[in-house]
Formats: sequence, C-alpha cells, structure tokens
Amino acid sequence: MQHYFTDNTLGLNETFLMSDDIAHHFISVLRSNNGDKFEIVDSNHKLFIAEVIDKDSSEAKVIEIKNNSVELPVDVTIICGLPKKDKSELIVQKATELGVDHIIFLQTAWSIAQWKNNKASKKINRLSKIVRSAAEQSHRNKIPDVKYLDSINDLLKESYDHKLIAYEESAKKGEKADLINSLNNTKPADSIAAFFGPEGGISPDEVSKLKANGYKTCGLGPRILRTETAPLYFLSSISMWFDLLK
Amino acid sequence: MQHYFTDNTLGLNETFLMSDDIAHHFISVLRSNNGDKFEIVDSNHKLFIAEVIDKDSSEAKVIEIKNNSVELPVDVTIICGLPKKDKSELIVQKATELGVDHIIFLQTAWSIAQWKNNKASKKINRLSKIVRSAAEQSHRNKIPDVKYLDSINDLLKESYDHKLIAYEESAKKGEKADLINSLNNTKPADSIAAFFGPEGGISPDEVSKLKANGYKTCGLGPRILRTETAPLYFLSSISMWFDLLK
Repeated sequence: MQHYFTDNTLGLNETFLMSDDIAHHFISVLRSNNGDKFEIVDSNHKLFIAEVIDKDSSEAKVIEIKNNSVELPVDVTIICGLPKKDKSELIVQKATELGVDHIIFLQTAWSIAQWKNNKASKKINRLSKIVRSAAEQSHRNKIPDVKYLDSINDLLKESYDHKLIAYEESAKKGEKADLINSLNNTKPADSIAAFFGPEGGISPDEVSKLKANGYKTCGLGPRILRTETAPLYFLSSISMWFDLLK
Repeated sequence: MQHYFTDNTLGLNETFLMSDDIAHHFISVLRSNNGDKFEIVDSNHKLFIAEVIDKDSSEAKVIEIKNNSVELPVDVTIICGLPKKDKSELIVQKATELGVDHIIFLQTAWSIAQWKNNKASKKINRLSKIVRSAAEQSHRNKIPDVKYLDSINDLLKESYDHKLIAYEESAKKGEKADLINSLNNTKPADSIAAFFGPEGGISPDEVSKLKANGYKTCGLGPRILRTETAPLYFLSSISMWFDLLK
C-alpha cells in the first residue's frame, strides 16, 4: 500500500484534502479511484489508513488507525563530513531506510567537497526530497531531518546522550568492544550520534575536539569502509541490536 | 598504503614482476619510485609488504610478511534476484567492503531486469572489476567472486551450512529472532548464504522451493528495505556479530 506523510494531525473518520503532492502521485500518476486506500502518517507520527472519497476534489477519509511503528527505540543521528560527488544522496536514502532520525552534513578540515554560499541550501533541499521519498518507500513513521553545519564548533552545541566517532585507526588496531559497550549503555529513548569522516579522513585536531566534548572513538570491524558505507554499517548494527537482539 | 592482489604465491625476500595492472597504477598513475612500498596479497590470501626495486622493469621485492587478516570467520554468500539499472554495481562494491565472499545474481520469476544472451557475461565481467577494486580499497585478504545463475534450480545445486531468505513478510509480521537464531548456530568456518528478492519480490513458488531445500525465512528489522539495501544490512549484521560481539 502507498505510504504518505501529512503535516496535519488526523483522527478516525476525519475527512481531509490530500496535499497536491499526494493527489498528484496517488490520483494522477498511479491512477487511483474513489475507494482506493493508502497509508498516511500524521504530524504525531501516527499511522492511519485512508481512502479516496472524491478524486476530483482530492478528498479522502481516515478509515482505520494503525498502531504499529517501525521506528528505532533510540534517537539516532549520523554526522557526515562532506562526501564527494553524489554520495550524500546515497547516504540519506539508505540511512532513511535503515531508521536514522537526524542527518548532519558537516564541513570538516579535510573535506574535499565544499558546500559554499548557496550550494548548501540547494543540497539540503534536494536531500530532503530524497529523504521524504525514502521514508515513504520504507513505510517510516517519521521523516528524518537533514541539515548542514559549516563548523565543528556548531556541532559541539548539539547535545546527545551517547557520542561516537567511527575511527579507522580503531579498526586497524583491532578494536572490537567500543561500539558494543556504547550500545550496551544506550537505553530506549536515549539519543546516540555517530561522526563519520569524509574521504580525506578526520583531522587529529577534530578528533581531539570531539573527544574533549565526550565523543568516543569506535571501530566498525576490521575492513576499511568508504565514507558512505560506514554510516550504513552503523545504522544496520543499531537496528540489529535494538530491533532483533533486544 | 596501496593494496593489491596477485594470482601467484609469494614469500619473504622474493623478487617478482608487478602485473601490468599494478605497475600501471602504482608506477604510472601514482608516480611511485624505487623503494616505495605497497601491500600485496598472494593467491593463498596472505598479506605481504613489497617495495619497488626497479620501476622501469616493474620489479618488486617482498620485504615483510603480515599476519593480519580482515576476513570474516564465516564464508558468506549473498544471492540477489537481478536488480534494476546499476544497482548490481552498488551491491558488489558495498558487499565487498562489508566482507562478502561470494555474490550470485539470479534470474528470478519476478525480476524486472533480464540479463539475456551475452549481457550476463558482460555484466559479470564489469562487476568483477568493481569487486577487485573494492577489495583493494578495503584491504581485503581475498577477492570475492561474482557469478550469474539463470534459474533457481541451479542455485539449489549450491551447498551451504546455513541458508536464509530475507523475507519482507517476516519483517511485516514483526519477526525478530530468525536471523539471530541462525547466527547463533553458525560456527567459524561454516558457510552461510542469504537470498534477497529483486524489486518485484520473491514469488511464492520460489519461497516454497527454497524452503523445501532448507532455506529459512528471516526478517531484517521492521522497515522495508530496498533490494540493494537488504544485503548490506545482512552483511553489516554478520560483521557486527562475528567481528564485534564474539
């Protein structure tokens, strides 16, 4: 069943107007008719089943409340040093499927890519559309947010219960326990954030700054992962831990 | 340090000729000189450090034996229903980084893509190059193999100790334990294979056939993953389990 999001709240038996985007997709593109059903998540992250009442006026009605949520029990942020080319698009799409809540792209000392002037807002705009579409496709109860920060000092103003740095040097040294230890200490509803360097890596100065602010380095297994692969490994591990093991 | 593979065996202090590919990349592209060092893995999956002796004749010498291996302790196969467009390229690159040993692309009943006639051999050729490059970049001790099978009956001739089907219906039903149970039963050196449907899904007939041949369905968390994301989740979970938890 198609899955959409609305910025409004909904309730059982409520009639509402489908947004232009939903009406365009469900009525015009998919050629749905009156009586056809779709999933819709409201601004409280609640999932409903609705049906088209009048396709010409885009009117729909909530016919069922669904109580299921596919969200992770923890609030997960990935912080990515600006990656090259269109890797940011791959990251946001896959991270959304894998359950991320917040995505931050950060200008770091060794980022080869630069999102200067109005490039950042254009990029974030485009990435937000990809995220929304991925959230619909993976039937999420919420749409993750994406933002750009141009300095690590701005990142340090963000507060998280658990803070990690995916660190290649940890992986090379055969470090195994730090990710697991952090997950062991993470309780439901806690926030957890992980920092991933860009292709050029994380500078020693950045590692020091992050560590001084409570970030802990951790390895993600012994193989060297590309900058866009590491967050996907991290999110899959979070899901395995909280969705399957706990 | 650059990381390459050779089809020959190597030993300490042995001199050898760099292959054309390695010489082209290390000498011509990277402009390395005599005395510059690189990692090289031989046909026994052993890692050595070598240095260039004479760049004009591509002569190199093994100067150190390294005993580390980044390979998973289990032999992992992913079996992918033919995905659309260039998703196969994303799958093989990321799966190689994440430690896969064998990748099979399978023509299934509901595959929208078709690799007919000589398309399959061209595809496999191209995918094998991507795999080799990813194995170099992630400093693997082996190059995973990639092959194409045009029927599920051919797949059933392949033998594995543990056989899984990533099954969306399991995920929807909130199934949590089957992947973990399988991993719990998997001992080092065992082989484990997981089947991932294409965009169109797995047909009921295929699920029955696979189940009749010892495949067990399992969920990969509650969110619906795209066909190219599911194998990456599976491989990350395998790595978390064997590289970090055990």
